[in-house]
Amino acid sequence: MNAWIVTGRSAFALSTYQFFRRAKVVKCITGTVLSTGIVYQFVVKNKVAAASLKLDQDVLKFMATPVTSLEKLSLNKDDIKSRMELLIMEIQAEVCKALVAVDGQSQFVVEKWSRVKDGGGGITCVMQDSNVFEKAGVNVSVVHGTLPHSAAQQMRVRHKELSDGDLKFFAAGVSSVIHPRNPNVPTVHFNYRYFEVDDKKSGKTHWWFGGGTDLTPYVLFKEDVVHFHTLLKQACDQHDKSYYPKFKKWCDEYFFITHRGEARGVGGIFFDDLDTPNKEEVFKFVTSCAKSVVPSYLPLVWKHRNDSYSQADRKWQLLRRGRYVEFNLIYDRGTKFGLLTPEARIESILMSLPLHASWEYCHQPAPASKEAKLLEVLVKPVDWL
Amino acid sequence: MNAWIVTGRSAFALSTYQFFRRAKVVKCITGTVLSTGIVYQFVVKNKVAAASLKLDQDVLKFMATPVTSLEKLSLNKDDIKSRMELLIMEIQAEVCKALVAVDGQSQFVVEKWSRVKDGGGGITCVMQDSNVFEKAGVNVSVVHGTLPHSAAQQMRVRHKELSDGDLKFFAAGVSSVIHPRNPNVPTVHFNYRYFEVDDKKSGKTHWWFGGGTDLTPYVLFKEDVVHFHTLLKQACDQHDKSYYPKFKKWCDEYFFITHRGEARGVGGIFFDDLDTPNKEEVFKFVTSCAKSVVPSYLPLVWKHRNDSYSQADRKWQLLRRGRYVEFNLIYDRGTKFGLLTPEARIESILMSLPLHASWEYCHQPAPASKEAKLLEVLVKPVDWL
Repeated sequence: MNAWIVTGRSAFALSTYQFFRRAKVVKCITGTVLSTGIVYQFVVKNKVAAASLKLDQDVLKFMATPVTSLEKLSLNKDDIKSRMELLIMEIQAEVCKALVAVDGQSQFVVEKWSRVKDGGGGITCVMQDSNVFEKAGVNVSVVHGTLPHSAAQQMRVRHKELSDGDLKFFAAGVSSVIHPRNPNVPTVHFNYRYFEVDDKKSGKTHWWFGGGTDLTPYVLFKEDVVHFHTLLKQACDQHDKSYYPKFKKWCDEYFFITHRGEARGVGGIFFDDLDTPNKEEVFKFVTSCAKSVVPSYLPLVWKHRNDSYSQADRKWQLLRRGRYVEFNLIYDRGTKFGLLTPEARIESILMSLPLHASWEYCHQPAPASKEAKLLEVLVKPVDWL
Repeated sequence: MNAWIVTGRSAFALSTYQFFRRAKVVKCITGTVLSTGIVYQFVVKNKVAAASLKLDQDVLKFMATPVTSLEKLSLNKDDIKSRMELLIMEIQAEVCKALVAVDGQSQFVVEKWSRVKDGGGGITCVMQDSNVFEKAGVNVSVVHGTLPHSAAQQMRVRHKELSDGDLKFFAAGVSSVIHPRNPNVPTVHFNYRYFEVDDKKSGKTHWWFGGGTDLTPYVLFKEDVVHFHTLLKQACDQHDKSYYPKFKKWCDEYFFITHRGEARGVGGIFFDDLDTPNKEEVFKFVTSCAKSVVPSYLPLVWKHRNDSYSQADRKWQLLRRGRYVEFNLIYDRGTKFGLLTPEARIESILMSLPLHASWEYCHQPAPASKEAKLLEVLVKPVDWL
């Protein structure tokens, strides 16, 4: 259960004093200095000296040093595994900084953890109970090892080409859920991941990308949803005009709470098992999608963060957050895979759950209320563009 | 999604005026009078006239008329299906009345629902946001039809004897979760059910009983847990001295939140697929268990309902309710079966979820605090007797 090791816990944007104090603590535990805060510092050790100057500069912008050693990343800098790890580190930092900026008061707590028996680890950044956000989590994980039987079985349902022998895997991804405090600000979720499976029996290596970004408003502002979808469409259109309509539909289907007969939110894009036209092109597409998170979502936070709201708005937000919990625990593929992965760091997987949620027996919004108007578009997905 | 019909919604303990007003509304919808409230009334129709006087008298104590017609119940009064339906109706009423008594202010909302395409229905009683209870739900369901493929597959995992053809089933059960307001009062859950499956291919009818009662405290009062387990042991010991140790262990194993490495609560008893020594004996055992709900649990509510508590106690209660949600949505067999059943009435299945729950990233109780003391017994199950 507790087979992961947290190698560093620190607050983002520390004072210089705090930074040195904390860095020292981290140093005691890990033997390396964990770079944190807006005041960045990186001690170039003998081993790391071999890393390119470019990589050193990039790392200074991250929330922590990457999971894989800089030396290894530098030696394999053209490998998609290294490039994906650097991309997700960059996205994590970009999103965290944007959230800190709009929050104006609070910091991210950064935790670096590693798997003891199996390989890899991750960096979890959480800002909780802050000025603007009830809970904002941005998690990076880079893990590898042998797929446990249950996870392999789940994977074979979608990947018939995988043999029944041992499957070695590598997975790198960034995932995030942002639950704001003000009910007029929507919740956003995004996740971009790269997967590689070595099938020993057939001698083949399978790879694919997956991901998406989707929005869950509590109050429906059509112009906000249109802005959000427009930015996602732009990211898609740069690569393939068929992507947005296809992945928008997939998103509506995937984030559907079947037992409620309603969508979790107003969608966005979602795709999985993407392995065409080639690794390079899909990586570029995923990069565009991940880079669209901040411009598609942050303007909505800036716009509504200080809107006035009623107790009824808050109550409705909590009820919808209950639905969010239902989706994540019952249907979400990432959560399920996480729970089946040995040495899974449960707090990183379940950081997607809101700080507070409610369930009221047989709650029905009043006809023609703004709650009812939101429900209308959840029950029947809308083409926003 | 909404293929069930609610045939009556009424408050328990209505005034005479309310009763007649509501009864009229119900009559308009269903064509039969739904008996509700402490002021009971039952219109004996031609068809029902054949029912024995004893049955008529029993029905007067229920929260609503049974799902199966009184005529049919009377004609098949020795069939275990009829006896189980009457038992669960009786238990529902017994528990609801005990809760109304300790609450002192509020009423149960009673809803009778039926499945449109497939057979059967149920009676859901919920008291929400009341004086003593945040949410108390007691549900009876009596359903039959053909098992959907997914539910049949899930059942075959445990019942290898079932063929791969169509499976006709009958299921009758009472299930309940009581979430009190005061953190010093524990949550209780119980569920007792009878299952019959007609395997057309083999021509055999399989049957079994399942159920259990388990306690989830937020503050540990050892003497309360001992009282609770003592009453359950007494119920078991009347039938088989091996039952309590066996079903206590099963309960500890079943209500374990694997991904957290901790039990949901302090256990109780749990059993499933019980079909020995014979139908009559198992029915009697289940009766004893169901009858032990009120004496094992209600004294704890009376004792602690007015205890003073702090904001920290409330916060901890909400975090533990988050764990309750995790168990119910990820592991609970009943919830999973419910979600796979066509025309499932989702509000009746998910009434088990608390009114409010919280998730805090990496929450750890202070060492030696009362929260930490509770966690100790959750991480490692205890023999209470």
